[in-house]
Amino acid sequence: MQEDAICEGNYVLMYLNKRRTYLVKVRRGQVLHTHKGYIKLDELIGKRYGSKIKSHLGYTFIALKPTLRDYVFKFSRKTQIIYPKDIALIVLYSGIGPGSRVVEAGTGSGALTSALAYYVKPTGKVYSYEIREDVLEVAKKNLEKAGLLDYVEFKLKDVTEGIDEKNVDAVILDLATPWLVVPHAYEALADWGVFTSYSPTIDQVVKTVEALKKEGFVATECLECLVRKIKVIPGETRPETLMIGHTGYIVIARKSFKEESD
Amino acid sequence: MQEDAICEGNYVLMYLNKRRTYLVKVRRGQVLHTHKGYIKLDELIGKRYGSKIKSHLGYTFIALKPTLRDYVFKFSRKTQIIYPKDIALIVLYSGIGPGSRVVEAGTGSGALTSALAYYVKPTGKVYSYEIREDVLEVAKKNLEKAGLLDYVEFKLKDVTEGIDEKNVDAVILDLATPWLVVPHAYEALADWGVFTSYSPTIDQVVKTVEALKKEGFVATECLECLVRKIKVIPGETRPETLMIGHTGYIVIARKSFKEESD
Amino acid sequence: MQEDAICEGNYVLMYLNKRRTYLVKVRRGQVLHTHKGYIKLDELIGKRYGSKIKSHLGYTFIALKPTLRDYVFKFSRKTQIIYPKDIALIVLYSGIGPGSRVVEAGTGSGALTSALAYYVKPTGKVYSYEIREDVLEVAKKNLEKAGLLDYVEFKLKDVTEGIDEKNVDAVILDLATPWLVVPHAYEALADWGVFTSYSPTIDQVVKTVEALKKEGFVATECLECLVRKIKVIPGETRPETLMIGHTGYIVIARKSFKEESD
Amino acid sequence: MQEDAICEGNYVLMYLNKRRTYLVKVRRGQVLHTHKGYIKLDELIGKRYGSKIKSHLGYTFIALKPTLRDYVFKFSRKTQIIYPKDIALIVLYSGIGPGSRVVEAGTGSGALTSALAYYVKPTGKVYSYEIREDVLEVAKKNLEKAGLLDYVEFKLKDVTEGIDEKNVDAVILDLATPWLVVPHAYEALADWGVFTSYSPTIDQVVKTVEALKKEGFVATECLECLVRKIKVIPGETRPETLMIGHTGYIVIARKSFKEESD
Repeated sequence: MQEDAICEGNYVLMYLNKRRTYLVKVRRGQVLHTHKGYIKLDELIGKRYGSKIKSHLGYTFIALKPTLRDYVFKFSRKTQIIYPKDIALIVLYSGIGPGSRVVEAGTGSGALTSALAYYVKPTGKVYSYEIREDVLEVAKKNLEKAGLLDYVEFKLKDVTEGIDEKNVDAVILDLATPWLVVPHAYEALADWGVFTSYSPTIDQVVKTVEALKKEGFVATECLECLVRKIKVIPGETRPETLMIGHTGYIVIARKSFKEESD
Repeated sequence: MQEDAICEGNYVLMYLNKRRTYLVKVRRGQVLHTHKGYIKLDELIGKRYGSKIKSHLGYTFIALKPTLRDYVFKFSRKTQIIYPKDIALIVLYSGIGPGSRVVEAGTGSGALTSALAYYVKPTGKVYSYEIREDVLEVAKKNLEKAGLLDYVEFKLKDVTEGIDEKNVDAVILDLATPWLVVPHAYEALADWGVFTSYSPTIDQVVKTVEALKKEGFVATECLECLVRKIKVIPGETRPETLMIGHTGYIVIARKSFKEESD
Repeated sequence: MQEDAICEGNYVLMYLNKRRTYLVKVRRGQVLHTHKGYIKLDELIGKRYGSKIKSHLGYTFIALKPTLRDYVFKFSRKTQIIYPKDIALIVLYSGIGPGSRVVEAGTGSGALTSALAYYVKPTGKVYSYEIREDVLEVAKKNLEKAGLLDYVEFKLKDVTEGIDEKNVDAVILDLATPWLVVPHAYEALADWGVFTSYSPTIDQVVKTVEALKKEGFVATECLECLVRKIKVIPGETRPETLMIGHTGYIVIARKSFKEESD
Repeated sequence: MQEDAICEGNYVLMYLNKRRTYLVKVRRGQVLHTHKGYIKLDELIGKRYGSKIKSHLGYTFIALKPTLRDYVFKFSRKTQIIYPKDIALIVLYSGIGPGSRVVEAGTGSGALTSALAYYVKPTGKVYSYEIREDVLEVAKKNLEKAGLLDYVEFKLKDVTEGIDEKNVDAVILDLATPWLVVPHAYEALADWGVFTSYSPTIDQVVKTVEALKKEGFVATECLECLVRKIKVIPGETRPETLMIGHTGYIVIARKSFKEESD
């Protein structure tokens, strides 16, 4: 058997086409049912990632190794999830990386949580606040699926009432009232800490930016990210007709001290 | 002295306002000269990050700890650098993270290199190909500044002639003729490897996508990312007048085998 | 009866909400059936535009006078229609106005035709070429509905084989191979004439721009127009989630003479 | 002499390249001075539009007949002018056309005024309100230059205090406080009238939309228009690097009656 081959217990992204992919956990005796026929998962064991597998109706599927983005797209959802484009900007602009300690709220389906965990591992930690227990349970299962549970401490707590951690590298918010968390974020952040929040409406942004200013944050920015897909076909290349026109605004700010040093 | 305070040898981002920031290495006896007056860098030593410092003309600067994005913006440049928005998407969509082994070409000013190094550390590695020696020297200095030199192996080599590494997690290209590298990328990538390229023109994209198809890559996508900044002022909130309308297209593809498995 | 009131034979846009509007011709004895109940059209006669009318189920409809844009949205379609945003730019950038003589091809559903007719009336004329007779019949009915038939001469002809008219103010193309029409457009246009074409793919644009250059057109531009809708709700204002990400590229060029004058 | 040739008194757009164009009135004995040499305007008389003319330094200029858009771009400005892309949408979405009677405020530099005049001629009229006399004088000169003065009645009046006209087809606002004009617009508009306003900030939009709702307008929409230019060069086609990211939001609404009819 090929080293690095697909083993029992692995997750595999069965790719039919751009619109049809299936995230499956490989287990003996299990079957993937699709509208293009079924595939016995036993067949996958020992195959290399990237292999082509035919369904019983003769359609070809490709057994891809899921990336972080694939996991995020396939997460069970109790809440609206944040898009990979926004996750990507939040991760880069908040300055986090391997070893960072990050406070996140709310957990939601764990999409952003999983990305944060992915990039702070192996030595960093994500402290993820959520007030709904049922939502938190789903998030935990999603993180487990993505193999990232060890890097997250889930907290069933209302972050608007306070943050337990101190000296964290970043506070990242995806909740309805980020402005209420700004003073707590200020206390929790290390001197070099970065505040980031993600909000669908401009009104949330304005309130958050005002709270940041009042609290002593500086270098505050607000931006939105639009991703347009291009259909690349020789002689017929063009952007896709429909696109996501809005998800949310991203606000980033840096901690500073209110008083000038002497 | 406050733990985590600014020490000699540290880099500090002196923030005057959104348009005026200065990345300085703290050295005794050195002076930062700006159009708003000078600051003796000795003053920074022992201060906490986030502190406010006045120039001799009385203007307030804030001593921020530079993030990855700050380093990238301040890199010395021999070539056009890739924007943080594009770096962010390339990192997330290529699936890399701590521990990944990544081939990158060309190195250019090292902006993308530094982000790749930042996210694959501490156990991963970036193999960065560049054909111009002068460009490579600048990149090395930039990576050293950002403290990321240990995670990069620079190679003064023409990547269109071949890739030395095998079984890498990602091949990421920012060069004029990515399509010429596609066959080498296929050989270099692990079974689960992700191909990514970044190109300013649509013609480069079309050629690359055709080469990917011919070589056996699947799940090919092309996208462009537009970031719009919002001026948030209570009662006067509006997007900024000017924006970057285009930088480059991002192409992502996944390795697969040409033959179906039996 | 109020002057300017709704008369038999008038078209009325029955507005239920943003997603549900009905363009009806007022005729005695006719009934508008909707999923929110029916309305007897007799009731509309003598009412003022802007009046509220209840369906038999008690839902309120508003009797609006249709604008050009409403007609265009409600046209019967045999082909993909061009969006009002693109029509607006084409009309303005092609420089046409009351009195202009314009060649258009292909007619399609007549959406662009109707806008051209609307703006060149009362003294101008649109010459509209179309090769499919069935398509032309639908367009004629649409133009009749909008009351614009008098300003259009429909031609069941292949415009790639030649344009009959001379000295026209503008040639406006929405067909698969605009570059084949460029030499004919050059001949048909007055000295000050403007060429405009609308194409979904970038490949069509490149071929058209090359043909324009070869033929002696100058000041050639290519642009695309993105319209984003904003949901304005106090405290919850935000752009809509979905938007049209691409319709077509607009190419504009001006006639010039190949030789320099002495 | 060629019929339709350039005559004394005509305006001509001297086109050097996309970035360098000159709008000149042809007068005997006058000279156009440019950084690429001078051209005696006498030379233009009797030439056909589209002719190439060399400057005394040997650079080629093309004598184009200005379109509405050219006039607008070349207007003398005392105020920020509205972009052609926004003018185009405002004209189409407000439903005006030849014969329409339109109230506009404020006049500003007359860019929008000239477009409205251009499309309502020959039988329509634009009533244009402006409070600053100096601004109005500039606008009048601009409209005269574009040959559109006959279709506009300028009013040195504060439109927030009332509109003199009744039964107009459209009220179109480009001023700081459109919400203050909403009740007057309601009174001035015919039953089928369309309200349109153009505002740079989202706060203006929210206030205007609330005023419209209170007053009894329906079918209210808000949109923004982004135009991206494409550099079309065979083998190197790509959007331009810089674009206008924001000008203003367009709000459109339709008149309705507050009470239901019986």
